[in-house]
Amino acid sequence: MLKHFGDASVKFANPPSIVSAASIVGPKEGEGPLAKYFDKISSDVLFGKETWEQAESELMRQTVELAIQKSGLAVGDIQYILAGDLLNQNSGSIYGARSFGRPFFGLFGACSAMGMAMTLGSMLIDGGYANYTVANASSHFCGAEKTFRFPLELGTQRAPTASWTVTGDGAVVLSSRGRGPYITAATTGAIIDLGQKDVNNMGAAMAPAAADAIAKHFRDLALPHDHYDLIATGDLGRYGSKLLLQLLQQENIDITTRHTDCGVLIFDEKQDVHAGGSGCGCCGSVFAGYLLNKLRTGEIKKLLFVPTGALHSVATIQQGETIPGIAHAVAVEREL
Amino acid sequence: MLKHFGDASVKFANPPSIVSAASIVGPKEGEGPLAKYFDKISSDVLFGKETWEQAESELMRQTVELAIQKSGLAVGDIQYILAGDLLNQNSGSIYGARSFGRPFFGLFGACSAMGMAMTLGSMLIDGGYANYTVANASSHFCGAEKTFRFPLELGTQRAPTASWTVTGDGAVVLSSRGRGPYITAATTGAIIDLGQKDVNNMGAAMAPAAADAIAKHFRDLALPHDHYDLIATGDLGRYGSKLLLQLLQQENIDITTRHTDCGVLIFDEKQDVHAGGSGCGCCGSVFAGYLLNKLRTGEIKKLLFVPTGALHSVATIQQGETIPGIAHAVAVEREL
Repeated sequence: MLKHFGDASVKFANPPSIVSAASIVGPKEGEGPLAKYFDKISSDVLFGKETWEQAESELMRQTVELAIQKSGLAVGDIQYILAGDLLNQNSGSIYGARSFGRPFFGLFGACSAMGMAMTLGSMLIDGGYANYTVANASSHFCGAEKTFRFPLELGTQRAPTASWTVTGDGAVVLSSRGRGPYITAATTGAIIDLGQKDVNNMGAAMAPAAADAIAKHFRDLALPHDHYDLIATGDLGRYGSKLLLQLLQQENIDITTRHTDCGVLIFDEKQDVHAGGSGCGCCGSVFAGYLLNKLRTGEIKKLLFVPTGALHSVATIQQGETIPGIAHAVAVEREL
Repeated sequence: MLKHFGDASVKFANPPSIVSAASIVGPKEGEGPLAKYFDKISSDVLFGKETWEQAESELMRQTVELAIQKSGLAVGDIQYILAGDLLNQNSGSIYGARSFGRPFFGLFGACSAMGMAMTLGSMLIDGGYANYTVANASSHFCGAEKTFRFPLELGTQRAPTASWTVTGDGAVVLSSRGRGPYITAATTGAIIDLGQKDVNNMGAAMAPAAADAIAKHFRDLALPHDHYDLIATGDLGRYGSKLLLQLLQQENIDITTRHTDCGVLIFDEKQDVHAGGSGCGCCGSVFAGYLLNKLRTGEIKKLLFVPTGALHSVATIQQGETIPGIAHAVAVEREL
């Protein structure tokens, strides 16, 4: 039986449950409005290590370990770990997952990684390949600045449309058995590039991809536009979110009253983060902490979670290339 | 029904067929012993572009396009493209896949990418999420040297155990319908790190992961050690291959008479490549060209294809880290 619908969507026959989740963030995120939803706030941005790369790997390791611990499972019960991050050659995830000794799929979708990991992690369970998978996404402000931008020591002034990479990690344990929340459907994004070149405005580069994924999700699955209580994009930020709403309105889809963005939620405007938070760990930690809590308490019943990614590298930007965007929509529902 | 066996393996219920494949390589690979098996040998190492990154993306785009063309399908029929490469932030695959407009999963497993893409691409089909997927892996000698090593202009002398990154790409179109060869089973690797630090000897860093994946494959699926006519590792090269055979012998598995390595096959010793070829496009192009041909002609009936990856980055090596390895075993059989 084909579970594929329309252009880019699937509906799960036996929707996997999120049996546990963990979120760990850095000190700045711990001063933000979502602080109480995270499992752990590290006061040490180095997580006890000596380099930014080691810090991100340790953050990843701790978060995955905590998620597995909270599920009551042993590491050996996990059949696949799927993880993504922003560092060159996925170093954050790889060195973080090294000690687990479990089958590993490294994913790269920039800040859309959590969407990829949850989609594939659900397919592996619903498809019959696993009883338990872990989906994870991490980022670290200092590692991301080093990888994509300027040495921190330069103290470079940031543009108003720039975002602030979240030091954080979100992990979920998915299972074929469980009492929800359930991952019921997923729309996998295509690479969308409308020619945006400004690396200080990634929201604008990703908004078209988010609009495309959301519109396809509604169309493919023939859902009314008010099906979800909340549609949470990844890290479009303040300016990208406005663009998203405009782009969707052009397609006669109005989600204004039910849209939020993890990048807008995680920091307070007073924290001087300009457009908002970004990074794989932004929507990762906001999902595993805040959004999942809203689903568990019943405050929301149906969530469309739409991690977004800007798929450039330093080399491609230096060569005058534009910034391709991608977004993956994942439906998470409290009840079946 | 759980299709998962033992620690890390799956058997497909309805094994996906490889309905078409394409391989494109650069001029040096075109002077090697496998030249006649590749679909296209480019005399231009820049593939008509201006930078190494653009060249790799164009190589990727051309190869995926050719594989789809050979399948008789339209690009729009492909439900998912899964692709990996070595460049920072998967630039080769991302800018290459941008024009296709199809749902896209970027994978990072270094030179094991083709194994990941074929495993996940098969799961998406056998799991009921797609009728057609494309699995792809690419690499480019000049892009890899720039990313991991020294500027080409330095003319740095290479160590005897160093390998030569293949400029090449392999793509396969997988389908739920077809007359084989079939992808029947897959063992997904864990990250294995025995503490090897020498970036000029990646064969030694990857051999333990290859041994682990092959041993698990036999054990998980309870297969006799002579089940496969050929076991082709990815890019262990001459020295890594010797280590692999030794490590397996310690576990009483002797594959000496049926082992080969894509990195050893693709170049002649006279081509001054030292340990052999490497890179995602090495086993990618050797599989899509040479190995698949052997399966189609019946010269071999059962192949275990084991792409191997060295998961370091420049930053982690500069920080004194060791090189984690990974390997994914994919069973490809002519008949069911």
